[in-house]
Amino acid sequence: MLLVTAEDATLVVDARYATAAAALLEGSGGCPDLNLALVASSYEQTIVARVGQLDRSHGVHRLGIESAHMTVAQHQWFIDAFAGSTASLRPTSGLVEEGRSVKDPDELSILRDAGRRVSSVMAEALRGLRPGRSEREVAADIDRAIVRAGFDRPAFETIVAAGSNTALPHARPGSRVLESADLVLLDFGGTLDGYCVDLTRVASLGPADDDAREWHAAVRAAHAAALAVVRPGVAAGEVDTAARHAMAERGLAQAFTHGTGHGLGIEVHEAPRIGKRREPSDTLTEAPLRAGMVFTVEPGVYLPTRGGVRLEDDILVTETAYELLTNVPLDLHVV
Amino acid sequence: MLLVTAEDATLVVDARYATAAAALLEGSGGCPDLNLALVASSYEQTIVARVGQLDRSHGVHRLGIESAHMTVAQHQWFIDAFAGSTASLRPTSGLVEEGRSVKDPDELSILRDAGRRVSSVMAEALRGLRPGRSEREVAADIDRAIVRAGFDRPAFETIVAAGSNTALPHARPGSRVLESADLVLLDFGGTLDGYCVDLTRVASLGPADDDAREWHAAVRAAHAAALAVVRPGVAAGEVDTAARHAMAERGLAQAFTHGTGHGLGIEVHEAPRIGKRREPSDTLTEAPLRAGMVFTVEPGVYLPTRGGVRLEDDILVTETAYELLTNVPLDLHVV
Repeated sequence: MLLVTAEDATLVVDARYATAAAALLEGSGGCPDLNLALVASSYEQTIVARVGQLDRSHGVHRLGIESAHMTVAQHQWFIDAFAGSTASLRPTSGLVEEGRSVKDPDELSILRDAGRRVSSVMAEALRGLRPGRSEREVAADIDRAIVRAGFDRPAFETIVAAGSNTALPHARPGSRVLESADLVLLDFGGTLDGYCVDLTRVASLGPADDDAREWHAAVRAAHAAALAVVRPGVAAGEVDTAARHAMAERGLAQAFTHGTGHGLGIEVHEAPRIGKRREPSDTLTEAPLRAGMVFTVEPGVYLPTRGGVRLEDDILVTETAYELLTNVPLDLHVV
Repeated sequence: MLLVTAEDATLVVDARYATAAAALLEGSGGCPDLNLALVASSYEQTIVARVGQLDRSHGVHRLGIESAHMTVAQHQWFIDAFAGSTASLRPTSGLVEEGRSVKDPDELSILRDAGRRVSSVMAEALRGLRPGRSEREVAADIDRAIVRAGFDRPAFETIVAAGSNTALPHARPGSRVLESADLVLLDFGGTLDGYCVDLTRVASLGPADDDAREWHAAVRAAHAAALAVVRPGVAAGEVDTAARHAMAERGLAQAFTHGTGHGLGIEVHEAPRIGKRREPSDTLTEAPLRAGMVFTVEPGVYLPTRGGVRLEDDILVTETAYELLTNVPLDLHVV
């Protein structure tokens, strides 16, 4: 846990992380105000009590907690640790995430590099698709290629969905064997120096049928429509609206069952959220895009039991429009 | 989210999981009381409101929530969803986990199979260690072997730690290249049909030095001491005490910085917790072991900047003692 005050920050860790945390602090030339506090036990309750002590020694009157990340049990420990103190606990939402949403030049340099690397893995993965291999085997090959490409690890569980499994937006690779005429959806990412990228393409094993080509054309149109409106000042939700409008024009509005995109950074899902607009006060979708934000654009259609298509790229908001961080042709790849 | 009442259970999912959930229900011959409720949006808030509706339609007066898993923000949504209702929210802890801690015959059959498979992966991984390969490359090979052995996926991020990195209990594989005379620690697991196993061994690239052999002997003694006390009725914490006592006899008590083990099942860390005893009222460590529980025994020593050793096996509590689910020699493997 990290306690941030107006003067400094204190990282509270238990013995399991003592050596790693000390190494981190020695290496943090740009972070002279970061302190380290060790607790003897690995129990979270002890960590929280220690945070309470630190808090009192810093004379803090209000402590914000990240309500979307702290559990009800942890919160109760904080309440106990604060018993008798005059300090108050305030639930907050997205403070840290918001502070991370505009990337600095060092972060952009990593994300650009990561975008190039994940694109090369996709190109290789598409070339390697063959009938007879299972989704799980293809996913294992991709995970290996991700590491070989220089990533620390896959950014999330690699999705390889074949045939009707493409109708599942969150398909897990299984024993389904790729067959000729299958649609195959590949969605994977990598973590490079702590930053995540995320990419999706769809291939057809042999010529695609009319349905698949229709779905692909609609998703490609939605993808282009979304990109076309990206620039600083535009509400995040406008990007989603543009994609949704393009899908509706082709009669596939109901088949587009998720948001258009999500921010990328230390987490593979972070601010901004490019989702469906609901009401004018929706701070998630009405927040204006800013130069330096990085997010995915990934419209998709899913026809239960039949199949689906998703196309996903990672983009950076520039002063005037956007820059693509990923670079793989958007075609329905016929292999 | 799953809402369980005395009569039935309702799985609440959004559109992204509709097809997968429907397939699950069709296949659940043994679960006629499981219903499915779909919500139109992917926002958790909507899901929670729907749970509130269901709850009122079921006439529920008290709703338990899993306080260690629900966030403060989700809890607030529940409070909002219950506004105007006479039902009360009760934080609970470990109800679901406790209900899972004694495995049934079907679960044990999977865990025994998984234990055999992960053991074969370890034997192969130990044979394959060579100077010149990086921790990350070795980890990628292991992950591939895990999938090839029939697992759905690694159960957690595979640990390959070389040289002084073995002093980090939670080391992440990095660019460190294996050198001759290195200690190398391998800790990995696999998920098979939804159940996790977890195994750790240590190897030496060439003859081990005196330190490493001393650490290994102490950890092996602690491992044996822990196993020796396992039987139904013994407090979980007694197993930890036995391991800790053996370590203290060799002057390494301070170097054993974590608990002796953790339960295995749907999650890679679940009940029972084989941790350090604190006070007689500590329900975590004073709970008696029961036949059918499955957990790890994994004592370890960590000497900052120098190195460390951990040995981990998975065991099942039987009517009289225990059964080993994993089966790899406990030696300091010299390769």
